[in-house]
Amino acid sequence: MSNSYPITKTTRMKRLAERAAYDHATVHAILDEADLCHVALMVDGRPRVLPTLHWRIGQRLFIHGARKNGLFQAMRDGAEASVAVTLIDGWVLARSAFHHSVNYRSVMAVGHFVEITEREEQLAAYQAMMDKIHPGRWDQVRWPTEIELKQTAVMAMDLAEVSAKVRSGPPVDDAEDYALPVWAGVIPLKIETGEPIVDKATAPPLDQ
Amino acid sequence: MSNSYPITKTTRMKRLAERAAYDHATVHAILDEADLCHVALMVDGRPRVLPTLHWRIGQRLFIHGARKNGLFQAMRDGAEASVAVTLIDGWVLARSAFHHSVNYRSVMAVGHFVEITEREEQLAAYQAMMDKIHPGRWDQVRWPTEIELKQTAVMAMDLAEVSAKVRSGPPVDDAEDYALPVWAGVIPLKIETGEPIVDKATAPPLDQ
Repeated sequence: MSNSYPITKTTRMKRLAERAAYDHATVHAILDEADLCHVALMVDGRPRVLPTLHWRIGQRLFIHGARKNGLFQAMRDGAEASVAVTLIDGWVLARSAFHHSVNYRSVMAVGHFVEITEREEQLAAYQAMMDKIHPGRWDQVRWPTEIELKQTAVMAMDLAEVSAKVRSGPPVDDAEDYALPVWAGVIPLKIETGEPIVDKATAPPLDQ
Repeated sequence: MSNSYPITKTTRMKRLAERAAYDHATVHAILDEADLCHVALMVDGRPRVLPTLHWRIGQRLFIHGARKNGLFQAMRDGAEASVAVTLIDGWVLARSAFHHSVNYRSVMAVGHFVEITEREEQLAAYQAMMDKIHPGRWDQVRWPTEIELKQTAVMAMDLAEVSAKVRSGPPVDDAEDYALPVWAGVIPLKIETGEPIVDKATAPPLDQ
């Protein structure tokens, strides 16, 4: 059993191939750390992009949303999707404007989303989503009702044509530029969690 | 002169319309705060998505990259683009799984990117990019050479069909769920800047 995704015509890097990675460990770590993906899709002949939460169970990538979402309908009709997940780790400040860069970890996945229709699979998917947002959360909250499950669609894509791309480390300047009196280095960027803000609202009387 | 983008067939929100905003101030603030956009495009009949830095000058959105980038070539050939910019401000933990949400600010822009070919316009664009990454940086670094300018393409889209979407504040639960013994509230998320890491490398001798 391979521990890497195959390099296909679609996933082979044409530029900066030295930054490419196809191993499951690198790809899954990026998918699991990132909250958000952007899904590109053709709808009625026009490009559309959907920012949405994603999560992973094994070799499947999940998203969810309103059942009537036009992009989900296009997926049901067989539209191919391209998914990008991007983490920015820092600004790379070089001595020259040209060599400025970004440290990042990104994943690109291409394929078809299919709708999850089995109730048990839907619930397992929601559990995985909730526990990604906040570990253990699924066991604390009120679970979805039949009506809520019907209003929401869960879509899954098999991770098959997938690649990662990673840049890290200091700037790389042209040899003659290192002598320039310009500060160079990396300014790290990180998504930080703030102090939780409790919702003190209580239910209005039911007879209102 | 209007201070809002027109609501068109393309930009009118079909869902959660109460979260929509079309005023310049809201849209520009999101574009200027976010480092990264995702550009969706059709290339050879397939959806593609490009994560890339963006910046704004007035009513134009800029991106840049290798001149030979296939997506840029598709833009030159007239392909329409859909651009998403997404900031996540917090997890919204509700009492029910169903009402969990995310506080976010996002922008969607649809249109055509054109290449900037005038030298003065290219330099003005790079200055704006550098000063977004780090204010005042343009005046410190070595500017692009003719060769560097030729290797890189700067693409601009007029901001015409643009919308913002914003969710903020606490969870909104069903009335009967407020009595549940479940912690509810918002966990703020923010991109924080870390301590700069200076690059101590110096130039190798030029005769190496």
